[in-house]
Amino acid sequence: MTTTTNHHWILAARPTGLITPDVLQLTESPIPTPAENQALARVKYLSIDPTMRVWMADFPQYMPPVQIGEVMRAFGLAEIVESRHPDYKKGDKVMGVTGLQEYVLITGNEKRAFHKLPNIPFLSDTNFLGTLGINGLTAYFGLLEIGNPQAGETLVVSAAAGATGSIVGQIGKIHGCRVVGIAGSDEKCKWIKDDLGFDGAVNYKNPDWKDQLSAATPNGIDIDFENVGGEIMQAVLARMNLHGRVVLCGLISGYTKNDPSLANFGQIIIKRLRVQGFLVMDYSSKYTEAAQKLGLWKMSNKIKDKETLVKGLEQAPHAINMLFEGANTGKLLIQL
Amino acid sequence: MTTTTNHHWILAARPTGLITPDVLQLTESPIPTPAENQALARVKYLSIDPTMRVWMADFPQYMPPVQIGEVMRAFGLAEIVESRHPDYKKGDKVMGVTGLQEYVLITGNEKRAFHKLPNIPFLSDTNFLGTLGINGLTAYFGLLEIGNPQAGETLVVSAAAGATGSIVGQIGKIHGCRVVGIAGSDEKCKWIKDDLGFDGAVNYKNPDWKDQLSAATPNGIDIDFENVGGEIMQAVLARMNLHGRVVLCGLISGYTKNDPSLANFGQIIIKRLRVQGFLVMDYSSKYTEAAQKLGLWKMSNKIKDKETLVKGLEQAPHAINMLFEGANTGKLLIQL
Repeated sequence: MTTTTNHHWILAARPTGLITPDVLQLTESPIPTPAENQALARVKYLSIDPTMRVWMADFPQYMPPVQIGEVMRAFGLAEIVESRHPDYKKGDKVMGVTGLQEYVLITGNEKRAFHKLPNIPFLSDTNFLGTLGINGLTAYFGLLEIGNPQAGETLVVSAAAGATGSIVGQIGKIHGCRVVGIAGSDEKCKWIKDDLGFDGAVNYKNPDWKDQLSAATPNGIDIDFENVGGEIMQAVLARMNLHGRVVLCGLISGYTKNDPSLANFGQIIIKRLRVQGFLVMDYSSKYTEAAQKLGLWKMSNKIKDKETLVKGLEQAPHAINMLFEGANTGKLLIQL
Repeated sequence: MTTTTNHHWILAARPTGLITPDVLQLTESPIPTPAENQALARVKYLSIDPTMRVWMADFPQYMPPVQIGEVMRAFGLAEIVESRHPDYKKGDKVMGVTGLQEYVLITGNEKRAFHKLPNIPFLSDTNFLGTLGINGLTAYFGLLEIGNPQAGETLVVSAAAGATGSIVGQIGKIHGCRVVGIAGSDEKCKWIKDDLGFDGAVNYKNPDWKDQLSAATPNGIDIDFENVGGEIMQAVLARMNLHGRVVLCGLISGYTKNDPSLANFGQIIIKRLRVQGFLVMDYSSKYTEAAQKLGLWKMSNKIKDKETLVKGLEQAPHAINMLFEGANTGKLLIQL
């Protein structure tokens, strides 16, 4: 690689599983020369994130997928090497969507602005890609705004030794939670427990990991910060307490698979939906008030109804099956 | 059936699909005689509800499953025929968990109390099992407390011609929503549209029902009142608007199947979980505040992190795959 050539990874084909050699193509072009109001930056670090696999797919998602032939999208940290832009001077460090390449041209009207890195003692430049960047912010807002952690509650985080999960657990500890992480090796488990202070760590590659999860969450689970989905999410949901919260942040177990069971959960993330399980008995203290309102609507003909009557107790099994065969309209009743 | 014999359906075996003849067994016993503080009631109507299929299964659920050998649980409306209880007199009409049987003994300390039916003009007794009973209340609280309908929003309800769905849609209309119902026959669709005033109705048995759903929801869907699950829920979620709400009330399409993809959604209902999709970019206006906090935590060693560095742009495809193979701990970066 010479200093006159910019190398970049182009999205050449959409992946079906892992990234195979046909998916990304390493190409080159001359390093661009900045025009008026432009600056040229040399990329120093590239952030590698699971969401890149989502950007490569062509299903509808939270931002436009990368198009075939485009430089693959990526966050990065770069240093200005030449500037004709009033906001940047040579040597400035910036971060933003650099793409998977060596040089990036910063123009005056970037859709995603490049932010200059502050120079703060004790913090390294790369911290601004991770702990103080996209991963730290994801952990911070996901846990605090959606998980609503309360002291004494049990928080479980999957992909717990990842860039986001490892911060989620530590913010949970700061807020007084009992924190249990799920990760994929004993070494990762040791790190989150011994170095990061998690209360428990479960290696999902152990055959008895579900028992370990139960043992590590004796009071059940109040908050699931979900990064993985699939079988791991299923085991966590099975231990959730009543009225628990699930921060659906990622489904990494499904990104490289065509797992149809993940489709609905994928929509929940992409659309930032709130899905809430509901049983009417939680509202029993307000039944009377509601029944009065329903009665008024019914009497004023704002609500109409219909009954499907089945006669005779002996018809009960048949009547129950009618529900699943769509054989009733309105309320299904047995008349004795 | 004579007047000295009480007939009841006993849960004889747990069902695997629909209710087959081995599941429920019609048995008889002498009509009980009320003791002091007891009353005997003759069941007049039995409410047949999808949740009965759930009660027959032995997985953990929102109330104890019916045990093998017990009278099958059911809501019903009954009339007191003999009373030694101070609260009831002969001729009183009551509703409660009567079970699938002809006579029920009401004792002083019922776990689920029997409520006396008020005598209200224009309302029939059976209204208290449906529109003013469990279905109406389910529609009322589910839509108003969880769905939070706003005038002008689009509400879709599945099983829309059922006892609950038909009320949900009408309450949605009262609150100014555009309401579209999904049901399983043209006759049902006609009923909810012409008689109940739904804005649209889609028969999911038509081959092009998904196109019809799109046409009926030109502005997308803001609220899904979900009674069905499976393929129907999937089509609805695909049309949800950003920050939409899903009231997860039932998954009737899965109750008679062993559909593993429904397991997680089943847990969400049983535990009344709140699952919220999350993308960090929704919080961009608060990034600075959060980064300052994260920076302080990092500098005071309350948050620690780790980096996995991969050297060289040419390693990018491999680095992305590392994420899905669990090969990194902490933040994964390419150093150029």
